[in-house]
Amino acid sequence: MSELQVPELEASLRDAIKEVLGTTLGGNPEFIPPDESIKGLSAIIEISGGMSGYLALHVTSEDACKVAETMLDCSYPDVDDIVCDATGELANMLGGSLKKFSGRYIEPFKISVPKIVRGKDYETHAAKDTEQIFLYVRVASVRFTMQLVVYTVPN
Amino acid sequence: MSELQVPELEASLRDAIKEVLGTTLGGNPEFIPPDESIKGLSAIIEISGGMSGYLALHVTSEDACKVAETMLDCSYPDVDDIVCDATGELANMLGGSLKKFSGRYIEPFKISVPKIVRGKDYETHAAKDTEQIFLYVRVASVRFTMQLVVYTVPN
Repeated sequence: MSELQVPELEASLRDAIKEVLGTTLGGNPEFIPPDESIKGLSAIIEISGGMSGYLALHVTSEDACKVAETMLDCSYPDVDDIVCDATGELANMLGGSLKKFSGRYIEPFKISVPKIVRGKDYETHAAKDTEQIFLYVRVASVRFTMQLVVYTVPN
Repeated sequence: MSELQVPELEASLRDAIKEVLGTTLGGNPEFIPPDESIKGLSAIIEISGGMSGYLALHVTSEDACKVAETMLDCSYPDVDDIVCDATGELANMLGGSLKKFSGRYIEPFKISVPKIVRGKDYETHAAKDTEQIFLYVRVASVRFTMQLVVYTVPN
């Protein structure tokens, strides 16, 4: 990927966030300063084809429960399989929306089934030869980190 | 994927483990009973095409350092970027070998760049509609968990 496409990809990711998080959580997404405390559950979607990399949505366990409550209209006091699946579904919608908005700049890509990682203490390690975009968002009191990693050397 | 292919996939994964871990770490891989303490660093490779899913190699931080030491002939007291990359490279070789050995049973698949997750406390959540194979291995005093997850519903 040429460096020139990074701003266009970031703009597409912002559009996807506004569309999906705004619609699903019923609020106006607000971009906030970097916040390293937003972690606990991550939904990761592999991207291949027009570009290679992954899209990760990070959220706290408490906020993942709020997401499931809003999406499924049911109460979830703790993270369980349903909360994981709801967060994965949200990442899936974000991946689909990113594909749509970025279609003006890059060839179509494929997205995988979301993979969920959860825990109290973990981090993802970015490989060499990557471009990374981080966006921090608050919607209806829920905070998210969106991470888009693009491999700059073809797989 | 039909249920019948799970034993063939497991046999292919055993062959891949023997080939790659035996050659790279210079020992005879021994399959051991399930051991939940083998965690700390995970290298995850997405699989798409002939089958969809992912292959994850889990290892303790201490053993990841030993892997890097053996592969690179250099001392690594703590997990750093080089240790992460070495563990990712090992997972990449295992993915390539699995592709070769499973070629008799399934259509060729593509493997992604390895993604690394590390930390003291985390777990991966398997989506619904998956078949999972876990194998626990010890090679030259290093213990690994190999996890193969296959989505049974097309993406």
